[in-house]
Amino acid sequence: MKLSERLKQDAEDIWNDIYQHPFVVELCKGTLPIEKFKYYVLQDYNYLINSIKNFSLLASKAKTTSMLQELVEIAAIEAKGEFSAYNRLLKKLDLSIEDAKNSKRSLAEVSYSSFLLSTTENGSFEEGIAAVLPCYWSYAEIAKCHREKILKNSNQIYKEWASYYLEEEYLELVERIKKSVDNIEKDFPYDKLRSAFINSSRYEYEFWREMNKVRD
Amino acid sequence: MKLSERLKQDAEDIWNDIYQHPFVVELCKGTLPIEKFKYYVLQDYNYLINSIKNFSLLASKAKTTSMLQELVEIAAIEAKGEFSAYNRLLKKLDLSIEDAKNSKRSLAEVSYSSFLLSTTENGSFEEGIAAVLPCYWSYAEIAKCHREKILKNSNQIYKEWASYYLEEEYLELVERIKKSVDNIEKDFPYDKLRSAFINSSRYEYEFWREMNKVRD
Amino acid sequence: MKLSERLKQDAEDIWNDIYQHPFVVELCKGTLPIEKFKYYVLQDYNYLINSIKNFSLLASKAKTTSMLQELVEIAAIEAKGEFSAYNRLLKKLDLSIEDAKNSKRSLAEVSYSSFLLSTTENGSFEEGIAAVLPCYWSYAEIAKCHREKILKNSNQIYKEWASYYLEEEYLELVERIKKSVDNIEKDFPYDKLRSAFINSSRYEYEFWREMNKVRD
Amino acid sequence: MKLSERLKQDAEDIWNDIYQHPFVVELCKGTLPIEKFKYYVLQDYNYLINSIKNFSLLASKAKTTSMLQELVEIAAIEAKGEFSAYNRLLKKLDLSIEDAKNSKRSLAEVSYSSFLLSTTENGSFEEGIAAVLPCYWSYAEIAKCHREKILKNSNQIYKEWASYYLEEEYLELVERIKKSVDNIEKDFPYDKLRSAFINSSRYEYEFWREMNKVRD
Repeated sequence: MKLSERLKQDAEDIWNDIYQHPFVVELCKGTLPIEKFKYYVLQDYNYLINSIKNFSLLASKAKTTSMLQELVEIAAIEAKGEFSAYNRLLKKLDLSIEDAKNSKRSLAEVSYSSFLLSTTENGSFEEGIAAVLPCYWSYAEIAKCHREKILKNSNQIYKEWASYYLEEEYLELVERIKKSVDNIEKDFPYDKLRSAFINSSRYEYEFWREMNKVRD
Repeated sequence: MKLSERLKQDAEDIWNDIYQHPFVVELCKGTLPIEKFKYYVLQDYNYLINSIKNFSLLASKAKTTSMLQELVEIAAIEAKGEFSAYNRLLKKLDLSIEDAKNSKRSLAEVSYSSFLLSTTENGSFEEGIAAVLPCYWSYAEIAKCHREKILKNSNQIYKEWASYYLEEEYLELVERIKKSVDNIEKDFPYDKLRSAFINSSRYEYEFWREMNKVRD
Repeated sequence: MKLSERLKQDAEDIWNDIYQHPFVVELCKGTLPIEKFKYYVLQDYNYLINSIKNFSLLASKAKTTSMLQELVEIAAIEAKGEFSAYNRLLKKLDLSIEDAKNSKRSLAEVSYSSFLLSTTENGSFEEGIAAVLPCYWSYAEIAKCHREKILKNSNQIYKEWASYYLEEEYLELVERIKKSVDNIEKDFPYDKLRSAFINSSRYEYEFWREMNKVRD
Repeated sequence: MKLSERLKQDAEDIWNDIYQHPFVVELCKGTLPIEKFKYYVLQDYNYLINSIKNFSLLASKAKTTSMLQELVEIAAIEAKGEFSAYNRLLKKLDLSIEDAKNSKRSLAEVSYSSFLLSTTENGSFEEGIAAVLPCYWSYAEIAKCHREKILKNSNQIYKEWASYYLEEEYLELVERIKKSVDNIEKDFPYDKLRSAFINSSRYEYEFWREMNKVRD
């Protein structure tokens, strides 16, 4: 079994909880109160910045030239593509980049971002890349799991947001990150990768949970 | 007002919640179930290791020779004094260093440790030293707040544990860290220090909260 | 005066020595022994990898979103454009990427690369970006200074290599890095930027000097 | 053969050049012009600060608790013991800590310090500890090699300075660092350790060479 598949299998319970989390389900169905979604988008913007910084940090620790090129390119895709998507989304929600920058960072986002950065810096390149995978991959799996709901979603903003994670372009990005994990050398201690992957999966769950606490 | 006092004032609500948290109160009174305390000690051991690593990281970023010497010395006090204290405490609880190393790290501890390390590395020396203060200082304040309970505590293990935070030696360590914060240059943006200090205060609270979830 | 211009002025003597260094002059004229150029290319390949890692590190320390995007993009340009150029150049010289990877790194290259990375990590973002400028800018200035020689150069490999630094595409990259330096906040201590810029200028000179020691 | 012995053997030629470098020999004999020694002491002070920062960085990357404690303790010994020794030495030379701080850092010192820090940060703990050994060990070997000259040295300042590296206290510190290297796991690629050790040995040689350039 590929390393990425084994890691996902070990985090199965947490991922199932994510798929079924009310915030996630309501978002895919279109019934999520808009204030919750706005809060999520503002928090996620801050996470995105740290995720790009983390890809850059990973690039600086790459052990081969091809891995260096790969991570630099992923960081560039994120910094360009995802940011443009965010700008458009914020506009539709009557929000601005300034709102995102000035929003108070939730402890769930601070914890997750700190975990990614400190895993890359104080752990190893391998743990860092394993820690980054659950975010990108779980979004693709959420979209796959709730595909029917998303296609029938009558809330255009939510539908557009969720549909992105069904697209070829996004799935290719996920495949690239999965491949980086699959390429980790076989003798690297699996326990450490598992711990990084599972902790990130927990942070994914906690992120959705905290977003759901916002009053309607 | 000194910088440290101003920061503490801004975090007052969180600190009051810490003083009154059931885990803290029961520990000082002596009624805390021993399994909860054992779990706390194992988790705190992993936190301590990361705290020493963080003092070392701060030392490597010190801007003056005297600050470098100060932080190297604090790291050495922690690595020697606190570790010996832990060894004795673990023995009394029929636990070993191996138990601590092998215990599954809670998300509260991982989050707090990650936050300290990534604040020092990705933020600045100033934010890093502000983030480290709530842990050391709040223990002294907890002990001061519950002094009477501690002195009357009939659980010898808890009493001895808590009394350490009333001792001159410990209070001096707290004063040294406070002084490092007070020496931050006046033009450093207060908002950033406040954010580091308040987030760490929250992690302190979350740490106690998670420890209290363990079944008796 | 712009910050970048002031820094260049302060390093004028070193830059003049670079323009007139025999290795540089002979390369632009076309009389440089090919073995010296081959050695230079292999060493420069290793420098390039570290320079891309350094741009990634700088990105991870960027203080604004626009600076983060800018540095991620520069890293991507380098990782893609310059690498392809290197592959073509190595082929023409009957060398391979493997030769570059396996070549023994000279102390001049190790020192320069280490200086860039440790300035970014242990110094500050500002010093890191100031340290990176002399490499890119001085190549443009060398090409400008020896423009006539380059255009008349009958050694096609050298001519093609040197002409790249006269092109619009390259000059734009230099302008972007200069602008990043010019945008450093006015109250950042100039002495530190000057020290970073001048040390890098010295490393540029030392690099050419060490390349010239190779026997024909 | 122990790892440390194998590394030293591989660097033998460089170390022999160090033992016989005129600056080193004249210092041990007592004939070195005092201006050269003063310059050396000012440069070495800046190196020492970076060496302590590097031990702190290594501590923050330690993989076991005992290694963490060991490195924190070595950093503390350096920050306390060596600094006091420097203070006394500077006073005897009519120099002050301020003179050291304000002296222009030579490229040899900047290169060496940058190499140590970036090896620890961008390489690995193992390469970082291998890079740090030549400095401490070669001073002990220099003193052993020139023991007779040192004992007969009539320049009291030089004699006292050099005798320190013959003392039990210093030799114990060297043994501790050697042991840290010897404890590196057997499957760590020797090439990387060799490269770190040899580059540091070269920087040692370059340091002495640059110090000798000062006019009498």
